[in-house]
Amino acid sequence: MTSDAPRRGRRPGAPDTRAAILAAARELFAVHGYAGTSVRAVGAAAGVDAALVHHYFGSKDDLFVAALELRVDPRVALLPVVEAGVDGAGERLMQLFVKVWDIEETRLPLLALVRGVLEPGGQQLVRDGFFRMVLAPVGVALGLDEPERRMQLVASQLVGLVVIRYVLAVEPLASAPADQLVATYAPTLQRYLDGPLP
Amino acid sequence: MTSDAPRRGRRPGAPDTRAAILAAARELFAVHGYAGTSVRAVGAAAGVDAALVHHYFGSKDDLFVAALELRVDPRVALLPVVEAGVDGAGERLMQLFVKVWDIEETRLPLLALVRGVLEPGGQQLVRDGFFRMVLAPVGVALGLDEPERRMQLVASQLVGLVVIRYVLAVEPLASAPADQLVATYAPTLQRYLDGPLP
Repeated sequence: MTSDAPRRGRRPGAPDTRAAILAAARELFAVHGYAGTSVRAVGAAAGVDAALVHHYFGSKDDLFVAALELRVDPRVALLPVVEAGVDGAGERLMQLFVKVWDIEETRLPLLALVRGVLEPGGQQLVRDGFFRMVLAPVGVALGLDEPERRMQLVASQLVGLVVIRYVLAVEPLASAPADQLVATYAPTLQRYLDGPLP
Repeated sequence: MTSDAPRRGRRPGAPDTRAAILAAARELFAVHGYAGTSVRAVGAAAGVDAALVHHYFGSKDDLFVAALELRVDPRVALLPVVEAGVDGAGERLMQLFVKVWDIEETRLPLLALVRGVLEPGGQQLVRDGFFRMVLAPVGVALGLDEPERRMQLVASQLVGLVVIRYVLAVEPLASAPADQLVATYAPTLQRYLDGPLP
């Protein structure tokens, strides 16, 4: 049950109940991780039935993405990167990355997630959120051999770029134009996606 | 006045005075950054003369490195990487990186520095410490064109690897053997050091 609309186009519903479910989900996912959190437990913590959780948020995956509080569902945003196949995927991924991170509206919730990396609960969210739910499926959809390992290499480059450009804002990288970033990093990502693996 | 011994071989001195100077230096560098902190101000905050600060710690650069509380002076550790020239520097840099990060004694102080990245004072330390004092001089010593930009590209890869392997400890990257890491990342670093820049 993948939603194909950005999250700001929310399903209607009693705002208090929705908010209570979302708050419960954020807390449980942060403390127990994705695998250790059931939709039933989220419902119980919010004082509602699991069926109501599904009604408002769809699948457990959808609930998890909603709990990340991003403005765009990364699974949806990544579809065009994936659908065109592995050729040129490094460049398309960089274009998407810069587009999402250079716009304040989409950057701020992602930065909040990055800051959470240094807190134990935040680590679960990032590991489960970005690795299990976003990166690993992209690697599988691209038909990569060793999809987990290759997508982690990709992530190791992108996370570092986030830290230098958007968190530390070190010049000249912080002000480098988008097309220069794409041209610089796309070959690295492409090699990680389909180059030789030692 | 570069010390060529690891920092644990400290110069002798009254331990209370040394500690007071170091504590003052850490606080002032964190709050005001490298450029905004004078040796005189550190002395004043510690209740001693600037000459005594120089006596215990050497130059302002040496004091700054001491304030980072690393086990090894990165300027010294990087000498063999730099002295052999840019050919193969990516591989030598990766070997040093993995060696330093895979040993707990040297990893823990570095991790503390990384955690500081998300605090305003910590950002100053990382920007001044790693970029101004470690990376930028390495780029110059290697004779790179655009040394700052190239070393920031290198840093953007290494910082991301730190986050994925040592902070988040995502498998399989967290357990990848050192020689596999070197073989995987050395070509990326080498391209950033002397490949074409868009």
